[in-house]
Amino acid sequence: MTDSKKPYILISNDDGIYSNGIKALAKVAAEFGDVVIVAPDRQQSAVGHAITIETPLRYQKLVIDGKYEAMAINGTPADCVKLAHDQLLERKPDLVLSGVNHGSNAGINILYSGTVSAATEGTVLGYPSIAVSCTDYDNDADLTACKEAARKVIAFVLDKGLPKGVTLNVNAPSGEFKDIKWARMADSRYVEEYEARKDPHERPYYWLTGKFELLDDSTDADIHLLNEGFATVTPIQYDLTDYELIRKLGDQDL
Amino acid sequence: MTDSKKPYILISNDDGIYSNGIKALAKVAAEFGDVVIVAPDRQQSAVGHAITIETPLRYQKLVIDGKYEAMAINGTPADCVKLAHDQLLERKPDLVLSGVNHGSNAGINILYSGTVSAATEGTVLGYPSIAVSCTDYDNDADLTACKEAARKVIAFVLDKGLPKGVTLNVNAPSGEFKDIKWARMADSRYVEEYEARKDPHERPYYWLTGKFELLDDSTDADIHLLNEGFATVTPIQYDLTDYELIRKLGDQDL
Repeated sequence: MTDSKKPYILISNDDGIYSNGIKALAKVAAEFGDVVIVAPDRQQSAVGHAITIETPLRYQKLVIDGKYEAMAINGTPADCVKLAHDQLLERKPDLVLSGVNHGSNAGINILYSGTVSAATEGTVLGYPSIAVSCTDYDNDADLTACKEAARKVIAFVLDKGLPKGVTLNVNAPSGEFKDIKWARMADSRYVEEYEARKDPHERPYYWLTGKFELLDDSTDADIHLLNEGFATVTPIQYDLTDYELIRKLGDQDL
Repeated sequence: MTDSKKPYILISNDDGIYSNGIKALAKVAAEFGDVVIVAPDRQQSAVGHAITIETPLRYQKLVIDGKYEAMAINGTPADCVKLAHDQLLERKPDLVLSGVNHGSNAGINILYSGTVSAATEGTVLGYPSIAVSCTDYDNDADLTACKEAARKVIAFVLDKGLPKGVTLNVNAPSGEFKDIKWARMADSRYVEEYEARKDPHERPYYWLTGKFELLDDSTDADIHLLNEGFATVTPIQYDLTDYELIRKLGDQDL
């Protein structure tokens, strides 16, 4: 039974329920309230906002780090948040967190990120939601900066709330950070994406590799600030309508 | 060998390469140029912007409807467009199409849609890109309206181009439509999402069902216009930054 006077905090991720990042985030969240972890039972990176329609979902109860109530789900990050909301939690959460992801979710990576999509799903369902990612991909990376950035942003959101439809996307370097700054999503993309190989039967196959390309030189872009050693907070929203273009083209016949 | 003077049009989808929708879209596209189909080898609905990192991708060459050059990929819609761009096509496409999806991709569905994500991936890679969906989920639905809507929007885009970073998301009813209109993404969500069942061993499992809820009464919202019998075109963009909130909060310390 959770204490209904304390914030109830749902945590998910895309690296899977046994990752170091989710433990680090649970530890920070527990400073603010009661924690419940509902996360994929295995690695789900780059699944974006995928949801599971064709197969049923199940949960398995666990205790993470000897103290955090947890459920492992055979689904995607967005599935975890949906199922927790609709079926698994004893009461509605006050906050949804996702991460700490092992790897940056800045710039174009936001589009492919399961971590960010779990938080966005929290926002769609009406909860203040925050995604947290570390720029270092190593599962054993030093998450000190991420924990400190998460602590600041959680305190901010629990104090001031978030407008409807907004998710905060937080990135931080491994180790220390200079300061934490508001940032926009940097214009960026991947080039030279696949390595072509031949199998033992001389048939071609392709591995995704991808060379990241920053197309954005503005000083308030998330990737620029991360490269300078800052942690970043990018407010993102899921109404993808390009209103400016509608205003511009709206009177043109199709 | 394609004729380099004619537009070269890449088509993908999320219902899989054998769906009726992709054939319908290929037929319309062939009125404008040379068509190549690169699509998932099986149903991939609701995979969002998932991409495949952990396993290699392969293609299988096919001919669809006895005339369209095609490659079936063991991946997601976004994978198909990425791999086509980077490895499979003999030249860069002039246009990327995705669909016709069997099922609406209006309102919140845009977030989960593999169809829309294939088109968005086309935009990320720098190509004018259009997603087309039919509000009827039936594989045998009458796609007359979708084909006519696609025809108008393809003509518009080949004539006028599209600004950088913009994807056009087209929806149409089955059968006929009144007119085609610019529209915004309707505020909407799913409620009562999972049906809880017990397996033969009395263990719980959950199927996604979902009751769609329209939260938007504005007359220029896509779902509203579709309900009125119009086809809709929504320009969407993938810079998710909430610039208004940055302006509002940007001077507040975190």
